[in-house]
Amino acid sequence: MSQVTIDRNEVDIVIAAFHSDLTSFFEEWRPIFSQFHLIIVQDPDLKEELKTPKGFDFDVYTKSDIDKLVSSSNASMFSGYSCRYFGYLVSKRKYIISIDDDCTPAKDNNGDVVDIVTQHITNLKTPATPLFFNTLYDPYRKGSDFVRGYPFSLRSGVPCVLSCGLWLNLADYDAPTQSLKPELRNSRYVDTVLTVPKNSLMPMSGINIAFDRETVGPAIMPALKLAQEGKVRWETMEDIWCGLVVKLVCDHLQLGVKTGIPYVWRNERGSAIDSLKKEWQGVKLMEELIPFFQTLKLSQDAVTAEACVTEMAAAIKKGMGRSHPELANAADNMVRWVEIWKEVESRVLA
Amino acid sequence: MSQVTIDRNEVDIVIAAFHSDLTSFFEEWRPIFSQFHLIIVQDPDLKEELKTPKGFDFDVYTKSDIDKLVSSSNASMFSGYSCRYFGYLVSKRKYIISIDDDCTPAKDNNGDVVDIVTQHITNLKTPATPLFFNTLYDPYRKGSDFVRGYPFSLRSGVPCVLSCGLWLNLADYDAPTQSLKPELRNSRYVDTVLTVPKNSLMPMSGINIAFDRETVGPAIMPALKLAQEGKVRWETMEDIWCGLVVKLVCDHLQLGVKTGIPYVWRNERGSAIDSLKKEWQGVKLMEELIPFFQTLKLSQDAVTAEACVTEMAAAIKKGMGRSHPELANAADNMVRWVEIWKEVESRVLA
Repeated sequence: MSQVTIDRNEVDIVIAAFHSDLTSFFEEWRPIFSQFHLIIVQDPDLKEELKTPKGFDFDVYTKSDIDKLVSSSNASMFSGYSCRYFGYLVSKRKYIISIDDDCTPAKDNNGDVVDIVTQHITNLKTPATPLFFNTLYDPYRKGSDFVRGYPFSLRSGVPCVLSCGLWLNLADYDAPTQSLKPELRNSRYVDTVLTVPKNSLMPMSGINIAFDRETVGPAIMPALKLAQEGKVRWETMEDIWCGLVVKLVCDHLQLGVKTGIPYVWRNERGSAIDSLKKEWQGVKLMEELIPFFQTLKLSQDAVTAEACVTEMAAAIKKGMGRSHPELANAADNMVRWVEIWKEVESRVLA
Repeated sequence: MSQVTIDRNEVDIVIAAFHSDLTSFFEEWRPIFSQFHLIIVQDPDLKEELKTPKGFDFDVYTKSDIDKLVSSSNASMFSGYSCRYFGYLVSKRKYIISIDDDCTPAKDNNGDVVDIVTQHITNLKTPATPLFFNTLYDPYRKGSDFVRGYPFSLRSGVPCVLSCGLWLNLADYDAPTQSLKPELRNSRYVDTVLTVPKNSLMPMSGINIAFDRETVGPAIMPALKLAQEGKVRWETMEDIWCGLVVKLVCDHLQLGVKTGIPYVWRNERGSAIDSLKKEWQGVKLMEELIPFFQTLKLSQDAVTAEACVTEMAAAIKKGMGRSHPELANAADNMVRWVEIWKEVESRVLA
């Protein structure tokens, strides 16, 4: 239905840098990214200086910036893949778009390059419809609407605060799937975006997402760390954990989550077999996590993302912390994240 | 993942005939429909004899067949658009595919004609995944799988018993939407099918659906009749009502509902303005129905679709029947439908 106006001062694009030479990455994205402010967070383990081409508006954050802003005990939260969360913390803008540096622009079914910024911001600026399922997908998209029978009182929807994009070529499969089907690639561009219904949980991937930082930033944090977790993407679970947390927050606060377009093209990285050799701690954990999260209810007192996360952390620690030290740890990290978030926010306001 | 074998003896295609000359309709569908058994139910108000081309395997049911099978008080259940439900009743096969006679084959993004039978039966024969959302859509489709983080214990899914197809050209909009946007046509072929998550209700359209008759046939019935209801598609609510009932049954019995491909091409029919002039009884009703259905819980004793429908009918009558005579009536029709269904079934077995 509606066309959205994008205010470039409202958007930060966060890029976690795991390679020092970002030249080709930037060149691929130039037509889109050169119009926006970028926050580049360098993997704290990456020692070389970053190489970037001219013509972009960006700030780079390194290990020393992390150490300056947070205490040394908290700095470890931002190691490896989790460095991107530092970008969410230091941003002062309403919307974050977060893209991994192994992603390049995808093309749609017409062969046109996908503008991920426009699509993500459109997803966020048009309402979500988690309370009733629209079979015609996103009713706010041009050329679409609500299907017959959709209650009129629900057609205004709820604010959308999280937009989960998808991946062509290398889809976000786990190590067992990639190992069993090494030839499996995603070539189907599904031209739609839809709201994940209320009370339905989904596995969020951090590779290509956008969110309303002001509203749900406190719920998007690096909390879950597994003992065996390395830098291999398929082994990290922190974004999956975030997805469970943020979806529960959204369901509680009557906010919405969308999934679908925009796509990015994902290039090869890491070895599935290497990942498979490590312990399947994350895989096993999901079996217990899902039933727990599916029955977790927040109190009416929790009216902000911060309050929801704090309450959830206490419930996780109480319900699963004793049997799972890594979840007790995750709960502690959630509390620390909210504290850091509030502190950084108060400094900005001061 | 999987390819499905289709046993033509398991499938009945039900066509409600509202025009006496079905020649062009049959010719359009010949490559697909000529391989299957068809059940044609003639609108009881349509007096002329049907005109059909050669080369098809079908049975025609008319007003006199309806009067023979059910009592005269029940025969009114099958008037107008609801005559299709008579086809569901007399079928002896596992799967029903139901198509309106104003639909013709659609083409996919490659320009290939969509084989609705193969796609609907594939949807029904592969599991549904209502317990957790897969961002990569149908994980059982060739070229797709479960996304990282999807719990392995949920990857076997649940049986899928209802497949809701979609519409190109004239999408299933209501009279107000069509009146406000007379130029609105659906031209986006979204190449996917997905499970509607558990506890999420959707507005089902009866125009292009398939279902497992043996499992949920008793829950797909013409129950809700509005006083002003005519033959204009946009005014009928009986399929929307069915959708609420059958989704609740599926959620309770751990069965699944899919929506998405296959598409059909829908041709123009009826006047939106004419529909709009009539009372918006159905539109107003949805506002109250949805909250009621969203909180309706069935007992553990209800372990079949028949039992679920009977229990639901009692709850509707008790909860909404006094304030809404049309819902008391719908509840009565649900009970009658289950009785008729059981009786017809017992005659087949006798």
